[in-house]
Amino acid sequence: MHVHAYAAQSATSPLAPFSFERREPGPHDVAIDILYCGVCHSDLHTARGEWAGVTFPTVPGHEIVGRVSAVGGHVSKFKVGDAVAVGCMVDSCQHCVPCKAGLEQYCEEGMTGTYGGQDRTTGEPTYGGYSDKITVREEFVLSVPDSLDLAAAAPLLCAGITTYSPLKHWGAGPGKKVGVVGPGGLGHMGVKLAHALGAEVTLFTTSPGKEADARRLGASHVVISTDRKAMKAQARTFDLIINTVAVPMDLDPYINALALDGTMVLVGAPASEHKSPSVFPLLMARRSIAGSGIGGIAETQEMLDFCAEHGVASDIEMIPIQDIETAYARMLKNDVKYRFVIDMQSLKDEAAQAA
Amino acid sequence: MHVHAYAAQSATSPLAPFSFERREPGPHDVAIDILYCGVCHSDLHTARGEWAGVTFPTVPGHEIVGRVSAVGGHVSKFKVGDAVAVGCMVDSCQHCVPCKAGLEQYCEEGMTGTYGGQDRTTGEPTYGGYSDKITVREEFVLSVPDSLDLAAAAPLLCAGITTYSPLKHWGAGPGKKVGVVGPGGLGHMGVKLAHALGAEVTLFTTSPGKEADARRLGASHVVISTDRKAMKAQARTFDLIINTVAVPMDLDPYINALALDGTMVLVGAPASEHKSPSVFPLLMARRSIAGSGIGGIAETQEMLDFCAEHGVASDIEMIPIQDIETAYARMLKNDVKYRFVIDMQSLKDEAAQAA
Repeated sequence: MHVHAYAAQSATSPLAPFSFERREPGPHDVAIDILYCGVCHSDLHTARGEWAGVTFPTVPGHEIVGRVSAVGGHVSKFKVGDAVAVGCMVDSCQHCVPCKAGLEQYCEEGMTGTYGGQDRTTGEPTYGGYSDKITVREEFVLSVPDSLDLAAAAPLLCAGITTYSPLKHWGAGPGKKVGVVGPGGLGHMGVKLAHALGAEVTLFTTSPGKEADARRLGASHVVISTDRKAMKAQARTFDLIINTVAVPMDLDPYINALALDGTMVLVGAPASEHKSPSVFPLLMARRSIAGSGIGGIAETQEMLDFCAEHGVASDIEMIPIQDIETAYARMLKNDVKYRFVIDMQSLKDEAAQAA
Repeated sequence: MHVHAYAAQSATSPLAPFSFERREPGPHDVAIDILYCGVCHSDLHTARGEWAGVTFPTVPGHEIVGRVSAVGGHVSKFKVGDAVAVGCMVDSCQHCVPCKAGLEQYCEEGMTGTYGGQDRTTGEPTYGGYSDKITVREEFVLSVPDSLDLAAAAPLLCAGITTYSPLKHWGAGPGKKVGVVGPGGLGHMGVKLAHALGAEVTLFTTSPGKEADARRLGASHVVISTDRKAMKAQARTFDLIINTVAVPMDLDPYINALALDGTMVLVGAPASEHKSPSVFPLLMARRSIAGSGIGGIAETQEMLDFCAEHGVASDIEMIPIQDIETAYARMLKNDVKYRFVIDMQSLKDEAAQAA
């Protein structure tokens, strides 16, 4: 299956047109015509070779929404024309303890990333959603409920599930106070989802002037995290803090903001480590620092259904794929509310013109 | 009430005889004739002024066992002659959320330490168990079950509860794999208690040659933590690791040894911070790093009763109080199996001779 895409050929070259072959759908595969793909910080880190183990060329993109174009003979859950989605993984071993528990993201053999991974059948590198088509085994394809806007649903596949999963796992809901650190792609989804789950939500941000927008997203309170006095006033408040920041930071003011038995969940991994958290504030109120990675397939479907039911989706700015480098530059300045989504028609038009 | 004790007059002076007044028992107080007091690393840190906020003179000691010598008019739980114990705290606010939940150690106003604290009624500094008598409000006095050896029970009041509480809170029991880091006063109790709770226990130690003793304590496995290959072989194994080490260390090999959803609980606070733990291993298996401090009064009583029922107590080496500085020197070399306990008769004899 011939595929048009945008790829980085090296850590220093901008994304540019690239074409390659994907496998034709086998008996258990779903072929998807990609309509939209969200732009995640991971895409940028990968395209620029900032993470260990990136191989080039690389085709980023793991917030994929499209329509089924073909299905294998044994596919039962999907038919041609269905609105579907693919997130950060396209395969896993399917037999280890985490996989059996529906936590394929924690597969003991390592989940197969939608890009930058290695296809478990062909051994070829996996290429992501900055492309016009993708073939994925049925188990890793999600249904997009009818009521969701397809473009605004795309970021749910990474930003949505990455915040939904820890919110659910650590019991965010009515009567719980939840903090969300960082008002970016993940953070804005964290606020929306925690609010929809019934929690009282506080947004922590470094920059003033975001109160009105934070309230629109669902936050009851906004705390300027650079204001030491304001941070101190949060002491012992939160049952759960979802920390979406992926640059090295001082975690201690947030740990002190946790209530007895509170947990701060890190969902971003900085390139170099955070300042070492102080042990004493953990001991003094049985607090925890945890990590969480995306979510399992069943939970991702649950999240999509939850979003449809509660009218939750991402705030997006649509771009043609030709503007991806400009989008990256703006992301680095936090100049996006709150997620860029590529309209894949722009890629299809370009490919048609070139042909 | 005139009290004989050993105190440090400054961070650089050795512990030496000291006498002072304690309050006479009020209506809700219990006066205790101290028989034994365990020697905790905290005593040493405090006596040498290694922790912030130490005031001198200081009388260490918070693993206290003795017999009731008098009770106030409103005391209902104790009578003269009862075997009783006092741990790391002698008071708390009694009305905040943690106190109401029986977690007085996490009192929002701060628990009142058995030493180095400030008496909530008199405002005087609190002096600990390296002394012949103590007056404590009834709520903070524990009953020592008859079947426990009084001297070997003393270390249960800090080393015992500090490991028992997180073992219980994080569900150590049959079918669970528990690691204990550091075979010291806390660690040897952690191994004994985790084993008595029914968990499969692994002891992590830096020094070889402890296998036989570790097995005697209840460990099924011993891992030499400086052996990188042996540590790597533990990957994804433990539901819970109790880390008793209070010097800065690399936590990452232990985090990698946690299973999916596993937690490492730190029960010691190093004077300077640990190497910053890597975030990625937390994210990859939803692991947590938590802190835990001693235990509440109700749970401490539960622990004493559990120890009596299961025949668990500390392995101790009894010393006269005059040998305390030698004991400290040996503790610093880990030359004790596994806890020094002061026989307070030595103090009483000395005081009688001097009189």
